[in-house]
Amino acid sequence: MRLLHLDSSAHRAAESVSRRLTDLFARTWRAGNDRAEYHHRDLVADPVPPIGPAYCALGRRVEQHGVPAPVRYDELIETEDERREWDLTRALVDEVRGSDVLLLGAPMYNFAVPAALKAWIDRITFPGVFTGADGSSSLADLRVVVVTSRGGAYGPGSGAEDLDFLAPYLRSWLTKQGVAARNIEIVVADRTLAEIVPGYEQARPAAARSLAAAHERLGVLAGALPVPT
Amino acid sequence: MRLLHLDSSAHRAAESVSRRLTDLFARTWRAGNDRAEYHHRDLVADPVPPIGPAYCALGRRVEQHGVPAPVRYDELIETEDERREWDLTRALVDEVRGSDVLLLGAPMYNFAVPAALKAWIDRITFPGVFTGADGSSSLADLRVVVVTSRGGAYGPGSGAEDLDFLAPYLRSWLTKQGVAARNIEIVVADRTLAEIVPGYEQARPAAARSLAAAHERLGVLAGALPVPT
Repeated sequence: MRLLHLDSSAHRAAESVSRRLTDLFARTWRAGNDRAEYHHRDLVADPVPPIGPAYCALGRRVEQHGVPAPVRYDELIETEDERREWDLTRALVDEVRGSDVLLLGAPMYNFAVPAALKAWIDRITFPGVFTGADGSSSLADLRVVVVTSRGGAYGPGSGAEDLDFLAPYLRSWLTKQGVAARNIEIVVADRTLAEIVPGYEQARPAAARSLAAAHERLGVLAGALPVPT
Repeated sequence: MRLLHLDSSAHRAAESVSRRLTDLFARTWRAGNDRAEYHHRDLVADPVPPIGPAYCALGRRVEQHGVPAPVRYDELIETEDERREWDLTRALVDEVRGSDVLLLGAPMYNFAVPAALKAWIDRITFPGVFTGADGSSSLADLRVVVVTSRGGAYGPGSGAEDLDFLAPYLRSWLTKQGVAARNIEIVVADRTLAEIVPGYEQARPAAARSLAAAHERLGVLAGALPVPT
């Protein structure tokens, strides 16, 4: 049993609501069994290298071959740049394929996932990498816990639902990679700017309730998710 | 009159539909008047530095001051790191504020804008930078032409409209920065994978029609947008 924990907040840990919440989940889950494997990747301190022409050239060649499963990537590589791009990509893909639980710290930046998280998504979503020999997804049993924090409120009834390009986006992208919809949990902490921005003080009680609900939900999830016996 | 042209495709120019289309628009528009200023920024060849803790610390301090307009950023900077982050940010912000037309090459990557473009968005969307002394947006008169290319079809009737997290996203983000909705044009080239992926050949006529319509629309826009007299 293995937990892969990603953070993408550009804030320091102490200042970041999403980092504090993913840390809470990871500590709780790990306390449940000390034999679990755990890997933490900080997408800000250790950014995923941006994709470029060699990544695209190899990806296009794979697509031209119709993404047969399993893809023989090594046979399709033509240049040293493509080899380097593939090695970088495969390492990150293997990290996901080898995990049972994926914990994604994903604060809303400008209504969507941070660029640091999108860089990881753009790199690992390589043609065929999550497709097994029988055509099924290697992520079918992956459990995903997304933790998102947002300066304002974007939930049902907030009037700003249409500006949430993060939660629906991650749900769609994960589902397209073969993650089962029932295995995706999105935990939200809303109105984090209420503590900071003058004139937004009246939102502090709602912000506190949202944070408390996120704590509770993460505690339940950390206990309810399968742990090694 | 000044055109700012951004590209974010990770493909080489010859392989990139969005780069070819933005190039067509830029050449047509510039041919209309050789006195126009023109600046091209390649967000892949010359990536925007990712934001980090110093950027966030300064941004939060500005927000704590309630984003008075005009913000006296220089007076709020406390460290050398914050100074460097602000200098990087201000240069990119000034590029936008000083332009009359913004041309955005934005291919759809995994249903959303490429990480390279999101890195630019995350950096320039700094508290208060587009708010003028009278509270109005400095982008109210900016004309924006978005060129997006997509491997499949995501338009009305395609059945995949809900997977388009790019066009509605850019429209929302631009509007929130003060760009007038009537000043935003989004030009689409669909089904670009029809030329590449085995089994998708039947989509080639529709792909060709989509590309031809994009060419025509960009030609009209390049002629219809204001040019210097």
